[in-house]
Amino acid sequence: MKLRIGIIGAGPSGLAQLRAFDSLETKGQEIPEIVCFEKQSDWGGLWNYTWRTGVGKYGEPIHGSMYKYLWSNGPKECLEFSDYSFDEHFGEPISSYPPRPVLFDYIQGRVKKSGLRKHIRFNTAARWVSFNEETQKFSVVVDDLVNDRTYTEIFDYLVVASGHYSTPNMPYYKGLEDFPGIVMHAHDFRGADPYEGKNILLVGSSYSAEDIGVQCHKHGANSVTLTYRTTPIGVNWPEGIKEVPLLKNFEGDVAHFSDGSKERFDAVIMCTGYQHKFPFLPDEMRLKTHNCLFPDHVYKGIVFNDLPRLIYLGMQDQYYTFNMFDAQAWVARDIMLGNLPLPEKEERTKDIEKWMDKSLALKTHDDEIDFQTDYIRDLIRMTDYPEFDLDTVAAHFKKWLKDKDEDILGYRDQTFRSVMTGTMADNHHTNWIDEMDDSFERYFSDPETIEEEESPKKEALVK
Amino acid sequence: MKLRIGIIGAGPSGLAQLRAFDSLETKGQEIPEIVCFEKQSDWGGLWNYTWRTGVGKYGEPIHGSMYKYLWSNGPKECLEFSDYSFDEHFGEPISSYPPRPVLFDYIQGRVKKSGLRKHIRFNTAARWVSFNEETQKFSVVVDDLVNDRTYTEIFDYLVVASGHYSTPNMPYYKGLEDFPGIVMHAHDFRGADPYEGKNILLVGSSYSAEDIGVQCHKHGANSVTLTYRTTPIGVNWPEGIKEVPLLKNFEGDVAHFSDGSKERFDAVIMCTGYQHKFPFLPDEMRLKTHNCLFPDHVYKGIVFNDLPRLIYLGMQDQYYTFNMFDAQAWVARDIMLGNLPLPEKEERTKDIEKWMDKSLALKTHDDEIDFQTDYIRDLIRMTDYPEFDLDTVAAHFKKWLKDKDEDILGYRDQTFRSVMTGTMADNHHTNWIDEMDDSFERYFSDPETIEEEESPKKEALVK
Repeated sequence: MKLRIGIIGAGPSGLAQLRAFDSLETKGQEIPEIVCFEKQSDWGGLWNYTWRTGVGKYGEPIHGSMYKYLWSNGPKECLEFSDYSFDEHFGEPISSYPPRPVLFDYIQGRVKKSGLRKHIRFNTAARWVSFNEETQKFSVVVDDLVNDRTYTEIFDYLVVASGHYSTPNMPYYKGLEDFPGIVMHAHDFRGADPYEGKNILLVGSSYSAEDIGVQCHKHGANSVTLTYRTTPIGVNWPEGIKEVPLLKNFEGDVAHFSDGSKERFDAVIMCTGYQHKFPFLPDEMRLKTHNCLFPDHVYKGIVFNDLPRLIYLGMQDQYYTFNMFDAQAWVARDIMLGNLPLPEKEERTKDIEKWMDKSLALKTHDDEIDFQTDYIRDLIRMTDYPEFDLDTVAAHFKKWLKDKDEDILGYRDQTFRSVMTGTMADNHHTNWIDEMDDSFERYFSDPETIEEEESPKKEALVK
Repeated sequence: MKLRIGIIGAGPSGLAQLRAFDSLETKGQEIPEIVCFEKQSDWGGLWNYTWRTGVGKYGEPIHGSMYKYLWSNGPKECLEFSDYSFDEHFGEPISSYPPRPVLFDYIQGRVKKSGLRKHIRFNTAARWVSFNEETQKFSVVVDDLVNDRTYTEIFDYLVVASGHYSTPNMPYYKGLEDFPGIVMHAHDFRGADPYEGKNILLVGSSYSAEDIGVQCHKHGANSVTLTYRTTPIGVNWPEGIKEVPLLKNFEGDVAHFSDGSKERFDAVIMCTGYQHKFPFLPDEMRLKTHNCLFPDHVYKGIVFNDLPRLIYLGMQDQYYTFNMFDAQAWVARDIMLGNLPLPEKEERTKDIEKWMDKSLALKTHDDEIDFQTDYIRDLIRMTDYPEFDLDTVAAHFKKWLKDKDEDILGYRDQTFRSVMTGTMADNHHTNWIDEMDDSFERYFSDPETIEEEESPKKEALVK
């Protein structure tokens, strides 16, 4: 009997797992039978933008947290695949901070080239997983949403790649139920346009709050206020964006803060993070963790310690993304194939504890970057994912943090050099703050040429 | 072994099922062991208002479709329990169209009185159901959301009372993804305040479109436009509300309609109905139907014909509500207890077909009312749910339709006589169009007294 591997989710992590097996197959090795279930109608996970909020066409909770005008908030040189470069995909240098459609195109390039779509069953939601101790196999009940049909598949290994930035964490503040304006979680934010001329309150101090705040500012919000629990983001905010201490409660449309200040708002967007949520798993198989750099219970960050046939990908807090998922997927592949022997549980536990202890001692963002760099180095050492200059990528990350501190509206105009190809990023034809069009077409256009034509978007193009 | 009955959902239908058993117990009869699972933190189903949209505290899709300022859109005399009158609950006559908190209080009154809370496990979502042909028992895996713990319960009968107005049906119109304003389903509408001074488009021509349109008009929307597929609602709309033919597509914030007209809007609310969705059931146990007065596959509208140990409550399109759920629950109870013999499958199928054929021949709303009246009469005849004057209730419904036709902003000021107690409804102290406060306190206050005091709500109280 051929080994059968189930993958839940065809986002960046699930696709990395498919590509990991594909890379063996192209070397002439036989690979297991792989079935990947994706509840959305297309691959890409979070990168698969939808205008929908709430539930999708078939009534499943919407996975995507993407919004219009989202541009990469980190240099693309830090997330580049080491087996598929930006140069290979685009054939020319591009800027370091491309908009979503451009990055999505890149992600798709590798898996299209490899023909991996055949492994994926789209519009198929995982409903319930069980594990048979006797046979050592998983039963996975899935729901074919288009045909309203449920069925069961049996697997030797199960890879959970369903992400952890999809299920909102939504705290309550007294009076919120009587706030007259729009109240939503960042997960449901689909673009800054409705907030033109408005005064908006963003609850939170992480990437969502930072980026949604900056986007709303760019697209004409009258004022943007961020409220933080313990530590402000603390960058050099431009006029029109400010940070205030912890939100206490609402009275009508007025928010009260812990420093005694108060202000009225038109809309509240909760940038309050996400939950690790696996409703299709029995609780003894669930990874129970908050968002951190090294979750408990997973050996090498991926192998569920109580049941090592269960693999989790991408469940960490993330500086590194695509190439970290790759490193994890390559290691997971070798473990599943038996090419990489798994130590006994006790040793695995020790290794987990070692990493967790390290992670708990981290003080600065730079420390965190170094930690995740070491983690990926450890993974790559174990397998044949093409090595790359991790120290330079770490340096890129540290410069990125500095750039943001100094100029939150301008950091996306910076450029970085690829450690994969040595290619220096190009300058985008338009500074980010002036670029109101995030489309693929606009990105690869030559504005000077367009300007001479009769363009309906002419005003937007003149800096 | 005592009979074990599982109920999924503690909304009006699930509570009716609990009360049906309770009414036997109070007569001294022994009742089965009953466990009701409710994913929300409180009972009441749709009547349990929440400010949340998307997913709830524990990441489950939000059940509620309620909004601030929702008042009953049908006379309360049509939904009165025949074993627990409004008089018994409130001790005085009240108006025929109370706001949500007042109706919610009434629903709760009966189940509090009966002490039925003990049967309900709150914050517990049904995850996966299976049926063992050999033992003829259901296994129900549930998820204790607070403790993040899953476990399995075994039942002889399973009652699905999870409703069918919770999972939005959201069609796509070309250009919707580029509409710059807020786009939401009626399910996520939480009140009219954000639409003050706005031009809003409501897609649909059923109760949601009608009521959200009227609410937004009342609360100061600049214009309300409803777009219908085949038939307009066609009531005598006031200035500021209009109906236009089918929406074709969007260009930016401009909607184009099938009559060639176009208009710009600030927000789009899709009042496009709901899906019957049972993600916790294998597809062979799912009731697959659109929203209609007599769904296929359920004998007497409740017994799943292919597996009669599976009961569905309240899955019909509804003129009648609470007392229809009661009649269904009483019949279901007697079937589960074996007090009401179930005919053979062939005969059940014939009965289903008879009702379906009848339902397909209905032409007018009045016909539909008569049909559902007959359906309830048929149910009540089979069991000991207290009889009531169904013909008069049907007449109430027909008058209600006329009242709406004539004065969509004034029909809620009409009064009806209870068929349960003979009590004539009181006039509310304030006409509905002038009543901006839907709270319980306001409803039972005496505005003339309040006006003499120093009231922060003074302006709102002066007609």
